[in-house]
Amino acid sequence: MTENAAQVDHRAMANAIRALAMDAVEAAKSGHPGMPMGAADIATVLFTRFLKFDPKAPDWPDRDRFVLSAGHASMLLYSSLYLLGYEAMTIEEIKNFRQLGSHTAGHPEFDLKAGIETTTGPLGQGIATAVGMAMAERHLNATFGDDMVDHFTYVLASDGDLMEGVSHEAVSLAGHLKLDRLIVLYDDNHISIDGPTSLSDSTDTVERFDAAGWQTQRVDGHDPDAIAAAIEAARASDRPSIIACRTIIGYGAPNKQGTSATHGAPLGADEVQAARLGLGWEAPPFEIPSPIRDAWRIAGLRSGKARSAWEKRLAALDHDVRNEFERRMRGELPVDLATAIRSLKETFAADKPEIATRKASELVLGAVNPAVPETIGGSADLTGSNNTRSPDLKDFSAEDYAGRYVHYGVREHGMAAAMNGMALHGGVIPYSGTFLVFSDYCRPSIRLAALMGIRVVHVFTHDSIGLGEDGPTHQPVEHLASLRAIPNLNVFRPADATETAECWQLSLEARNRPSVLALTRQNVPALRTSVADENRCARGAYELAAATGQAKVTLFASGSEVSLAMEARVILERDGIPTRVVSVPSFELFEEQSAEYRRTILDDAPVRVAVEAAIRQGWERFVGRDGGFVGMNGFGASAPYKSLYEHFGITAGAVVAEARRILDSLAPTDEA
Amino acid sequence: MTENAAQVDHRAMANAIRALAMDAVEAAKSGHPGMPMGAADIATVLFTRFLKFDPKAPDWPDRDRFVLSAGHASMLLYSSLYLLGYEAMTIEEIKNFRQLGSHTAGHPEFDLKAGIETTTGPLGQGIATAVGMAMAERHLNATFGDDMVDHFTYVLASDGDLMEGVSHEAVSLAGHLKLDRLIVLYDDNHISIDGPTSLSDSTDTVERFDAAGWQTQRVDGHDPDAIAAAIEAARASDRPSIIACRTIIGYGAPNKQGTSATHGAPLGADEVQAARLGLGWEAPPFEIPSPIRDAWRIAGLRSGKARSAWEKRLAALDHDVRNEFERRMRGELPVDLATAIRSLKETFAADKPEIATRKASELVLGAVNPAVPETIGGSADLTGSNNTRSPDLKDFSAEDYAGRYVHYGVREHGMAAAMNGMALHGGVIPYSGTFLVFSDYCRPSIRLAALMGIRVVHVFTHDSIGLGEDGPTHQPVEHLASLRAIPNLNVFRPADATETAECWQLSLEARNRPSVLALTRQNVPALRTSVADENRCARGAYELAAATGQAKVTLFASGSEVSLAMEARVILERDGIPTRVVSVPSFELFEEQSAEYRRTILDDAPVRVAVEAAIRQGWERFVGRDGGFVGMNGFGASAPYKSLYEHFGITAGAVVAEARRILDSLAPTDEA
Repeated sequence: MTENAAQVDHRAMANAIRALAMDAVEAAKSGHPGMPMGAADIATVLFTRFLKFDPKAPDWPDRDRFVLSAGHASMLLYSSLYLLGYEAMTIEEIKNFRQLGSHTAGHPEFDLKAGIETTTGPLGQGIATAVGMAMAERHLNATFGDDMVDHFTYVLASDGDLMEGVSHEAVSLAGHLKLDRLIVLYDDNHISIDGPTSLSDSTDTVERFDAAGWQTQRVDGHDPDAIAAAIEAARASDRPSIIACRTIIGYGAPNKQGTSATHGAPLGADEVQAARLGLGWEAPPFEIPSPIRDAWRIAGLRSGKARSAWEKRLAALDHDVRNEFERRMRGELPVDLATAIRSLKETFAADKPEIATRKASELVLGAVNPAVPETIGGSADLTGSNNTRSPDLKDFSAEDYAGRYVHYGVREHGMAAAMNGMALHGGVIPYSGTFLVFSDYCRPSIRLAALMGIRVVHVFTHDSIGLGEDGPTHQPVEHLASLRAIPNLNVFRPADATETAECWQLSLEARNRPSVLALTRQNVPALRTSVADENRCARGAYELAAATGQAKVTLFASGSEVSLAMEARVILERDGIPTRVVSVPSFELFEEQSAEYRRTILDDAPVRVAVEAAIRQGWERFVGRDGGFVGMNGFGASAPYKSLYEHFGITAGAVVAEARRILDSLAPTDEA
Repeated sequence: MTENAAQVDHRAMANAIRALAMDAVEAAKSGHPGMPMGAADIATVLFTRFLKFDPKAPDWPDRDRFVLSAGHASMLLYSSLYLLGYEAMTIEEIKNFRQLGSHTAGHPEFDLKAGIETTTGPLGQGIATAVGMAMAERHLNATFGDDMVDHFTYVLASDGDLMEGVSHEAVSLAGHLKLDRLIVLYDDNHISIDGPTSLSDSTDTVERFDAAGWQTQRVDGHDPDAIAAAIEAARASDRPSIIACRTIIGYGAPNKQGTSATHGAPLGADEVQAARLGLGWEAPPFEIPSPIRDAWRIAGLRSGKARSAWEKRLAALDHDVRNEFERRMRGELPVDLATAIRSLKETFAADKPEIATRKASELVLGAVNPAVPETIGGSADLTGSNNTRSPDLKDFSAEDYAGRYVHYGVREHGMAAAMNGMALHGGVIPYSGTFLVFSDYCRPSIRLAALMGIRVVHVFTHDSIGLGEDGPTHQPVEHLASLRAIPNLNVFRPADATETAECWQLSLEARNRPSVLALTRQNVPALRTSVADENRCARGAYELAAATGQAKVTLFASGSEVSLAMEARVILERDGIPTRVVSVPSFELFEEQSAEYRRTILDDAPVRVAVEAAIRQGWERFVGRDGGFVGMNGFGASAPYKSLYEHFGITAGAVVAEARRILDSLAPTDEA
């Protein structure tokens, strides 16, 4: 049987991916050749026949998004991007696979210039992130119309991606929202690291996706025309689509293909040689014969016309609409935000509301959402508790993608991952809602947001034992510490309504960083009662109340405990002990202040006591190893919150006692 | 239509649950009446007709397990346990619902005396934990036979449970393992907190479970005979079963039933009154008419005969088998463990192996697993990387439940939750394997293990940038800190093979605590080269190398960085700076030492430097606020690991420089 010319072309092009993957993994002496070789046909069909993109303009807003959910197959992506002509993805980068400073890390790292749309590797994250990209696409389509936003999100996913729990949350959410521009190519190779997937899984994946409302297809993953026909059908579907592509892992490696031996280690020189022979690939390592490279480069230019047409449509837009679209895609905030925050702070200073910071956050959102039309809020089924919905927001749903409020369902992890996808897509700023304790469910996605440096805002309410009766399963005690441990994540814990407004502003302004807002369930008094133009929370920690005279004691506190510190200060000052209170809404921003500023905050008094209804870990950087601490030593309990504060000894009296204890130890003869 | 007597009886018994749930929530002024009222019929059928248990012997090993996955419906469980006659669950406890010190917390807390098999509340955890219980049951059945172990695990789960990602991992694992003794009753009430589930979900749950290999049924959840027939069919199934029970949330509350208004708040006095009227419930609050109470108590005695028969079979067992069964169920270790560890330490002292601690762990398991037959190991599809399989372990599978090695698939969260279930079931000690960075996926289950105080051991390998090329997505930097933040969790990071053996011993001996073993991918030198009978790691931190003369510097380090500290010590001592090295395998155990011991470890030298290839957070308790630290400030990178240690400045030279910098600052005139 003779193959037709188109198929020969396809095969040679796919083999270019296989050859580069083998070569790079051999050179790095580590990596994953199996999936790049097995899924090369899928990638070749997708990239050379369907994907809409322009290597000369990797940030073209209306490009199709491609997510390699199986991040370990990074060489599949790098090879394709190099072959397609992305300037940042040179052959030197391919040769430097997995070396320090390259664009070709072990797992793909978000790098738009090189064509990498998101960081993947932790399984399940890619497909769940892609759901957010597809949500953002539909929302912007509903807002700006087909002329500006009308593209697909493609995902290449592995067995491992689909075994992960987060895939369930993502898949059911996508099915519910009828995200018809989302197409998942499932590399159905029947192999995982431990061996055949039959060791650990018996799921009927097609039936599973069918149950979630997806269009489903099965194809031979080495038959390019079958793959193409399936993609055509998927593009025509009114639901999200999965195409299960039956492939052979390590396709082309004659002795190892079809086994886990090809998954995560170099094939070895002999097997690579044998594979070259079998595939008919005669070029030396890292070299691509020019006819094949040219064919790829021509494919890379396919969407040039589409992009020019899009540019013309953009230029023809109404001036204001165009400005608004471009502002959003640049990620710049509208000037109205500062005005809205300023006005809120004036109201709070005047009204001195004694409200929960979650309620304050709702008031802030009531001002922010109308001023910043790119916010998309939501909650993992705790809307009334998280106070994340402002009155102007309509539901985002399959019936109305213009809506800006997402009912994520009880899917904290899927929510966090989808938010990453929205932020990566651009044009929207996502914020979430759940209880702080459930940040644990979101953690892998929050970490990726921090690693990528993207703007997502997590509203985590019920931030301590202050939530009361729901008990220790719902009471965070270690979560502030464990979130503060994540590099490049802002963790805000505002003390009152004014601080809440300031922290919201900082979160929205932090373009290259995710933020967490830890908010109370219970009411807290107003502490900032005069209007300051300055955003004092931007300092991370600041003196909220000065001592009368030379300070002997500094009380550091965050959130709901700042008011306890203020009460304790009154008692200590009354007893003749000059005491200042430092509010600490953000450890991270404080660390970024000048050494001099930090010194004035930290070292103005010999006695230092920190107060937070959480564990001590991390507070030593304020109070030192032997400083005072009033907080939690273990898990909470189920009871009304006031009883809990008493029971666990987090009271103004305890703060006073702790300060006196240390003062006494410093100057035993001066004090009673 | 007249109802028959049996149905009238059932209805009155179910209404007793409804009445107590309404009353307790009203008294507490908080809680969740909706599901207890909606699922009262299901619970009544299950508890009074099927569940095998004995309120007089809540820890009877062969009892059926019941898991209320929807933990917010805690009053459903508390009411039932009270009505059935558990002595620890008195009417006073019911009246003290959600009050400090009661057995009736907002969400159920593991409390075997009161009949509470596991802590639930964070959604999805219950069903995933139950999978582990069912695995332990089948394993012990295969080991000790039908006479000793032959029971069901029942779960009552809500929409929220099934939306959570971990449910996917649990459900697919259970289906693959054909856990036919697992029966899930799904309270299909179409309501979540934000409103109808149609707001956020369109999944066909029956089809979903079918795809995972489960038996599926649908029934009217208010028809007791239909429920009973479905449970009968489920018990006869050769696969795990789900029964979707269509219910009305808040059943009986005439104005609020069927809406989310009944979910998470008291009904209010008027609605409670109306419900009493509608249900025909005339007794005052917290009172149960004696015929109804008697009917429940009689149901509570149903399994008495079964238990006596079981006791007789136990008594008739071969003496050694009986001793072994009872030892395992008590959770006591065999004496062989100490011998095995001692012998290993001798080998390590003699051989001085330069191996990765993950490899050392494999060698330890090679000795432990034959000596401790109750261990059940496994890995989330990283067996070869985690080194969690010792040669003697056969696969645990649907074909061989006697096997002791579980291929969990790429299901870290499901694995951690299943391990909790195994530990709660008793008779087995589960240990896991995955990369340390993926502890984030397991976190909600690890937290519950710590809260419950149960023995599970997590083997987390690839514990730093030392994993090299896989890059920052796979390199933990904040995970040691964030795990150390969890109360009641032992986090071990051994420095060499001997410490690995000691930390394994401590993990297995910690009956009321989960443990984490953070292990290297890369080789580390042997540091403990003489045999000590004492388990030095039990101190948490200990002096590995003394200073020559009065110490000027203490270097604190853990894991792979202890050898760097030892190298730095040689250089500093050579330069005339007396330096000691303290190895810190466990922060938690160190905190539990006497104040005097801690002082000798911490305060013997004026200069303190900590070394760990992770973030600084937490080390201040050793080195103080201004102490030295050599470690990570942010995320890692993809490169061979030696380049990374150089790149991030984690070297013996850097430790020396840091020590000298601090020494200089203390005595500027003494040093160059």
